[in-house]
Amino acid sequence: MPPRFFAPDLTSSSPDVILPEGESTHLTRVLRLAPGALVEVFDGRGVVRAGVVERASAQTSVVRLGEPLPAVAEPDAPLAVAVSLLKGDAMDAVVRDATVLGAREIWPMRAMRSNVPPRAAQAAQERWQRVAIAAAKQCGRAVLPTIAPVRPLTDVIADTRVEFPVRLWLTEPAAASGEGADVPVPPRGLCLAVGPEGGWTTEEVEAARAAGWSAWTLAPVTLRAEHVVLAALSVVRYAWDAARRRRIT
Amino acid sequence: MPPRFFAPDLTSSSPDVILPEGESTHLTRVLRLAPGALVEVFDGRGVVRAGVVERASAQTSVVRLGEPLPAVAEPDAPLAVAVSLLKGDAMDAVVRDATVLGAREIWPMRAMRSNVPPRAAQAAQERWQRVAIAAAKQCGRAVLPTIAPVRPLTDVIADTRVEFPVRLWLTEPAAASGEGADVPVPPRGLCLAVGPEGGWTTEEVEAARAAGWSAWTLAPVTLRAEHVVLAALSVVRYAWDAARRRRIT
Repeated sequence: MPPRFFAPDLTSSSPDVILPEGESTHLTRVLRLAPGALVEVFDGRGVVRAGVVERASAQTSVVRLGEPLPAVAEPDAPLAVAVSLLKGDAMDAVVRDATVLGAREIWPMRAMRSNVPPRAAQAAQERWQRVAIAAAKQCGRAVLPTIAPVRPLTDVIADTRVEFPVRLWLTEPAAASGEGADVPVPPRGLCLAVGPEGGWTTEEVEAARAAGWSAWTLAPVTLRAEHVVLAALSVVRYAWDAARRRRIT
Repeated sequence: MPPRFFAPDLTSSSPDVILPEGESTHLTRVLRLAPGALVEVFDGRGVVRAGVVERASAQTSVVRLGEPLPAVAEPDAPLAVAVSLLKGDAMDAVVRDATVLGAREIWPMRAMRSNVPPRAAQAAQERWQRVAIAAAKQCGRAVLPTIAPVRPLTDVIADTRVEFPVRLWLTEPAAASGEGADVPVPPRGLCLAVGPEGGWTTEEVEAARAAGWSAWTLAPVTLRAEHVVLAALSVVRYAWDAARRRRIT
């Protein structure tokens, strides 16, 4: 597969496109591509097109565009993940996994037990964007998730946008005993909240419940915080796919 | 929760137990526990007991044993994962995730595209065991998976032990189009085969099919090889749990 580049200015009909600086640098300095090289370009909103490098420069490379290409299928309904801030690498892993597994939005949030200094989180915003772009390239997804600014948990709880009518609050096995745990099908816009390393406080769980979030437990096991998004979104995609197969057969 | 130690000599009725050397070193040098400290001890086969350190020495620590403790629930049926060798850290991650998610057996295997030198794999056996012990301690599981010696893929394909009547062969989305993908329920002993970074060869897929393995696709996404076990076992545990809830309600 030819190397893939992110070009937010791409449209499905543009004859050529200028790559952003970071992507141009990658094309010239890392991959050392020259004019004539075959590439693929995606716009982060679902369009992928074949292309040929026309000008290769570390500042502004230009790609002449060819036919549209099929993109990796998006989930059957919009997916968002509300993630309590985790430390550096762990948060990068969450952004990467959420991108690969089809999240449309990522909502970083500050929970009581998030042990990340506010300044570190602010500086990370740009890095998360780069992580998402790299992940999309690697897995072939043509849509980039929107990464919201860091918000306090109380704001996220109150975020009841109509795109995400199903709101699941991931809890540890013990806390959710007796609560329903099936992924709702057929697929409807779903937001999944994942807690910090130290878990939610009782007040947070109560506030979420009062605001209409449902407790959900993944499986009777305790995963590392940075793995919960990968596991949970795999389960959601599996449950939605299974529902689609039942509708078709 | 008191720190937990692995003591293979433990039984449900022993009055005290000697910890193995590695565990004794951890008790004295890392955690710096002294006689009188409260601990938990597990045997790797399902027994967990409370205890009090009686003698703390880097070579042989002794724990006086108290009451049995409840252990994390095991899966509803035996789970095995047949994993193509991955490089160092990635393989450690797979062993850790398989342990946390309830695998009873881990079968490392050499596939055509496993790019790990034979000697490195042999040396790793002991490390994998330590990784599994550490993971079991962290997640509270009282059972350690058996880690089989590295075998060629052809031997694994032919391993049709009665404990694992369901044999699923994980394939990339494209390769499995049209094939069934629901996790079989109710739970029956299941072995899941996960390929190397470079994927299976056509011959391997054909040989597995001929030997009675069913192709299975997790979700229409491409995950890193080291994440497939985490995602796949999460899905299996979810599907089995959902089946149990339906039987109960």
